[in-house]
Amino acid sequence: MAQPTPSATLDPIDLDAARRRLATPDRLSEFFRPRSIALVGASDSSGWARFVVDSLRTAGFTGALRPVHPKRPTAFDLPTVPSLRALDEPVDLAYVFAPTHAVEGVLDDAAAAGVRNAVVLASGYGDGGGEEGRALERRLVEQAVARDITLLGPNCLGFVNAAGSVAPFGLGIVPPLRRGPVGIVLQSGALTSNVLAFARAHQVGISLLTSMGNEAVITTADVVEHLIADDDCEVIGLFLESVRDAPRFTALAAAALAAGKPIVALKVGRTEAGQRTALAHTGAVAGDDAVVDAAFRQYGVIRVGSLEELLVTAGLMGSGQAPRGRRMGVVTASGGACDIIADRSTDEGVEIVEFAPGTTDALRAVLPPFAAAQNPLDVTGVILADRGSAQAGLGDVALNAVVDDPGVDFVFHMLALPAAEPPDPSVIEQRVTAVAATSARSRIPVVNFTATCTDLSPYAQSLLDRHGLHALGGIEFGLTAIGHALRWHETRQHPPAVGEGRQQSHLHVPTRPGAGFADARATDGPWSEARGRELLAAAGVPLVPAELVTDADAAVAAAQRFGCPVALKVCSADIAHKSDIGGVALGASGADEVRAAFGRVLAAGRAATSAIDGVLVSPMRPPATELFVGVTVDPSFGPVLAVGLGGVFIEVLHDVALRLLPVDAGQVRRMLGELRGAAVLAGARGTRPADLDRVAEVVAQVAAAAAGLGPALQTLEINPLRVDGGDVEALDVLVVTGGM
Amino acid sequence: MAQPTPSATLDPIDLDAARRRLATPDRLSEFFRPRSIALVGASDSSGWARFVVDSLRTAGFTGALRPVHPKRPTAFDLPTVPSLRALDEPVDLAYVFAPTHAVEGVLDDAAAAGVRNAVVLASGYGDGGGEEGRALERRLVEQAVARDITLLGPNCLGFVNAAGSVAPFGLGIVPPLRRGPVGIVLQSGALTSNVLAFARAHQVGISLLTSMGNEAVITTADVVEHLIADDDCEVIGLFLESVRDAPRFTALAAAALAAGKPIVALKVGRTEAGQRTALAHTGAVAGDDAVVDAAFRQYGVIRVGSLEELLVTAGLMGSGQAPRGRRMGVVTASGGACDIIADRSTDEGVEIVEFAPGTTDALRAVLPPFAAAQNPLDVTGVILADRGSAQAGLGDVALNAVVDDPGVDFVFHMLALPAAEPPDPSVIEQRVTAVAATSARSRIPVVNFTATCTDLSPYAQSLLDRHGLHALGGIEFGLTAIGHALRWHETRQHPPAVGEGRQQSHLHVPTRPGAGFADARATDGPWSEARGRELLAAAGVPLVPAELVTDADAAVAAAQRFGCPVALKVCSADIAHKSDIGGVALGASGADEVRAAFGRVLAAGRAATSAIDGVLVSPMRPPATELFVGVTVDPSFGPVLAVGLGGVFIEVLHDVALRLLPVDAGQVRRMLGELRGAAVLAGARGTRPADLDRVAEVVAQVAAAAAGLGPALQTLEINPLRVDGGDVEALDVLVVTGGM
Repeated sequence: MAQPTPSATLDPIDLDAARRRLATPDRLSEFFRPRSIALVGASDSSGWARFVVDSLRTAGFTGALRPVHPKRPTAFDLPTVPSLRALDEPVDLAYVFAPTHAVEGVLDDAAAAGVRNAVVLASGYGDGGGEEGRALERRLVEQAVARDITLLGPNCLGFVNAAGSVAPFGLGIVPPLRRGPVGIVLQSGALTSNVLAFARAHQVGISLLTSMGNEAVITTADVVEHLIADDDCEVIGLFLESVRDAPRFTALAAAALAAGKPIVALKVGRTEAGQRTALAHTGAVAGDDAVVDAAFRQYGVIRVGSLEELLVTAGLMGSGQAPRGRRMGVVTASGGACDIIADRSTDEGVEIVEFAPGTTDALRAVLPPFAAAQNPLDVTGVILADRGSAQAGLGDVALNAVVDDPGVDFVFHMLALPAAEPPDPSVIEQRVTAVAATSARSRIPVVNFTATCTDLSPYAQSLLDRHGLHALGGIEFGLTAIGHALRWHETRQHPPAVGEGRQQSHLHVPTRPGAGFADARATDGPWSEARGRELLAAAGVPLVPAELVTDADAAVAAAQRFGCPVALKVCSADIAHKSDIGGVALGASGADEVRAAFGRVLAAGRAATSAIDGVLVSPMRPPATELFVGVTVDPSFGPVLAVGLGGVFIEVLHDVALRLLPVDAGQVRRMLGELRGAAVLAGARGTRPADLDRVAEVVAQVAAAAAGLGPALQTLEINPLRVDGGDVEALDVLVVTGGM
Repeated sequence: MAQPTPSATLDPIDLDAARRRLATPDRLSEFFRPRSIALVGASDSSGWARFVVDSLRTAGFTGALRPVHPKRPTAFDLPTVPSLRALDEPVDLAYVFAPTHAVEGVLDDAAAAGVRNAVVLASGYGDGGGEEGRALERRLVEQAVARDITLLGPNCLGFVNAAGSVAPFGLGIVPPLRRGPVGIVLQSGALTSNVLAFARAHQVGISLLTSMGNEAVITTADVVEHLIADDDCEVIGLFLESVRDAPRFTALAAAALAAGKPIVALKVGRTEAGQRTALAHTGAVAGDDAVVDAAFRQYGVIRVGSLEELLVTAGLMGSGQAPRGRRMGVVTASGGACDIIADRSTDEGVEIVEFAPGTTDALRAVLPPFAAAQNPLDVTGVILADRGSAQAGLGDVALNAVVDDPGVDFVFHMLALPAAEPPDPSVIEQRVTAVAATSARSRIPVVNFTATCTDLSPYAQSLLDRHGLHALGGIEFGLTAIGHALRWHETRQHPPAVGEGRQQSHLHVPTRPGAGFADARATDGPWSEARGRELLAAAGVPLVPAELVTDADAAVAAAQRFGCPVALKVCSADIAHKSDIGGVALGASGADEVRAAFGRVLAAGRAATSAIDGVLVSPMRPPATELFVGVTVDPSFGPVLAVGLGGVFIEVLHDVALRLLPVDAGQVRRMLGELRGAAVLAGARGTRPADLDRVAEVVAQVAAAAAGLGPALQTLEINPLRVDGGDVEALDVLVVTGGM
């Protein structure tokens, strides 16, 4: 058994930092390109070892393979050594098949033999869910740190480096393994064969694919960081069961966006909106998955719903033909396909624009008389039936005409590709050559696609490859991918501010309490409304005027100053939801009513608590549009801003837009546009159209005030924020801090 | 050229009836099974003819093929005859390649030769959009009727009868042509090769596929009627650009539902909600596509969004394993797949139930220690790595255990199928044999699926076929198909009433005017509210009390009888939207206010029209939940009921549920459950929970009152219908008739 490791006394933060040093991009560049591999515990009868040997062969691995087995003299027709210590020179990577209890010993051997990298297949660590397994995994990390061993797993299958022709991977890989621009990180290794099968069938090439296992040392974020730096990778595909270090993930997402490497992620585990905090609304509407969704959108991570969508989208993004504008020209030989495309384009916000007159003229000159020279274009089945005749060039002429249309941002071009090499391949060769020539000279992307998501035959793939073309798998996934590409490009135009990824972590936000609120951390629980109002006022947020009074005469005097009718609210840090206990009186007019209302709300407050600050008196406002603005703290992603319309929109429909903090006014403007009830702000219900710039400015101030509370922030909520044209005013404020 | 046909004087209705007699199920059974086919105008140089000859060969056609060409002595190595008249005996079908101008002559020849069936490829008829083409098409129909020729097309490619081994079809069919239970009707022939390619790749067998062209004689509805009667067909798949005869379509849909033959339809041409009638709300919310959607849902037509979804769904429905209950057991060898399945199940309303203790025990006995015996079940990669060992049977034991779980309605079972026959096929053969045995003995459906939508290899298909198994193409389309299957089964439990399909047509509804409203047809335009109230009262609809008064004193007296406050509304058939012109006064209290309000609304009315019936006085009701209930007339589908919540739900979110008339209270209950704001009726906003049975009863009465107006109905709208617990009352009524 292994000896106690010297790092056993590291505290968790130091251990994590030490772990990180094993998984830097530099270390991972070395890790993923071994020229010699030891198979520790491999025997001919082990299915896993057989898979690894087969996968290495499929990947074209030409380095040294050294089986290690304590008892058997050979494995896979190679002589074994009994232990890593018996190797004449260290290998670059040890693939450890040893059972759980033997892994520590193998790693000691590895360290002694100068091996710096290991894949650990064994399970029964943190994956088992038990305390014992977790302790075992911590020991494994400590050992790796102490021995300077970069480790993938445990409970993982290894990796497939197609770009580097090395695939120490414990499941079968059906050849051919296609190299290409897509780096893939899977938090479920069992999906690997499915991912590779679909990628192979759809001309999607892989640079690196990793099965992450328990992520004891190398984490998903480490591999993403490596892929951002790795020139072989142009697109990053993720299968995520969880986002472990959310601030690091968003920082990496921002870096990938800045580097122009799209991240496409299938994040599973969508759950019901959690009731995180019963004190405020915001927690209820900002459920775990909704926050993930918002964070991904904000940081340009393309979220997909299926493996097919993941790979077709990654294929488009890696093809060099991803569109950057929404105006689409469509060229097909099928009216039915045009119909389907038109419907799906509407879903994706893609515009099928009218062709320019020049385009229409050029098309009319070549189309058969019964075909319409319009977008989407159906050149008709004539090009199929009359192959080889004068009509054969019709598709090419049409594609060239549409590519030159000045009002089109990209062309969606349907290709019919053969299932096998035809007896006379010259027709299809000629066609594909012409498409490639048009594509090469085009100033706009030409996105080729097949009608449905059937496999591209090996012949079709070789044909496309020879001409540098890519074809998306079907109209359905193809247009979904195009929608993703367009949104990704738009996010690049409005990237999150540099450093947001770190700043948003409530662990890292510097504490910037508002003036006079240095005691925010000391407060544990809800604030009185009067104190909350002071915080917001200091941040520049416009508030309905209010006076805190402690007797009925002062209430009447305040009402006279404001003009009746007025609202009266009992003010106490102990009463977060005043109206629930009868602590609010609305529309009081005249001295008698104000006096009575004062007595009523105070009595209601006193029935609930002895710590009453007084009663807030405010002028009543006429009905107008009401917004809900709240900031809550997500346990993973930190402070989250939620903006929605009041009433049924928030209560029944949970119609909110979310963003991680910090946000600027520009981001808030886009949030407002995402609301299902956005038309209300435009005046749909007969109210004055909202001044959206002013609303965005105020909401950004609210968000800044919340961020200023630093780690003490729990909730900051304005409900409602009254909006009447350009008049924007907070009518009610709730602040909760503490509990960190 | 053809001579004038004797039926040239038939009126459109007679012509349509005569056309229908050519396209009965009996005639179509004959049409789609020819044992001899003439290829009229075929030459070796024609691409279309070559395709037809190839397609017939691919389908295994063994009947007689008779090329007809006026000039060439042979075609496709067969001797030609110069005209159909020169045939020694009539063929069963003539496939007409002749150009448009020659078609009439060919049909005359056909009739003279005793040929009863023809496919017409030529275009330039109604498809061109011009008046000349339409006239030509009408002549073609008249000629077909006069000559008793059943005709597919023009502008069509023909058909593929896989069940009957005959495919006179003008595009290439890549072999093999797979026979099976799915009958397919395409309003776009160019999609045929795409449909067949995906079907071939996913083990979806075809009985009959037709390219409809212009539907001059044989229509889509005719073929659907034939398929309902055809024993070779178990599922009907449609690609629809339009629903031409909506009442007939819904009647056929009801018949298919009753017969247990699912219809799966990709209906394209989704458009913006049309502003059909500016007078009423209902038209604006019941847009063309929303009505199609509602009609499909009501009549059990499964609507899909892509060709892949069409075929995977049809494949499931034809597999004999379509689930009938929502409780799913999942068996996979991939935790990642389980995660994806869990998310997608939530989307589809499929429940992943907890396994019964007996199931869990049985699983624990065989699973490796690190695997969780839970639903969804991941038996882990052990079954892959340890093929041939004791673990090989793990998948079978697990599947058997889950199949026997008493709380599970069906099993979703992931199959990994090889891309080609493996060197040792015994492992996979054994596995598939075991799955087939379990499936055969199971009391519940076992739905097999592959992880992603890659093609099933020919080897995998032959393996599945030999064992009578079907595998759905991927988790994404597979779970979508399961959701469709479940909703279809539920619609079968609540089928539309017999005869609805016909009755709903406003052309066929017998006129059943309400008592005292026999003059409804005579009225052209909006009714006065007082008259509308009488109609609804006669139908049993509860209304807020109202008195029609013509002077201020009477208004005051009415207000005293009702108790103040009251509402006053000017009453005139000329004023559909009273509040827009200031014709409504709300909350008038006391004689002075009532008197002033009377004067105000009357003056407003008089400014708009001289035809004032008086002023309606009603008691004000306290705020409560408000519904919108409207019936409008869709130009295709006839009367449509729309039900929604008032306020932002209808105005901003257009949140309405739609049904074709007639509906019963049970249907209305389901409509209420479909609303996004359904929680409001349950009391989400602090109101009394609505008595949904009472609401449904009243709405059904409103619908019946609308239906009673017969063809005169344009709009009947109650806005709002006030709902306060079990108190349901119409507060405002608008009826518009005429214009038919």
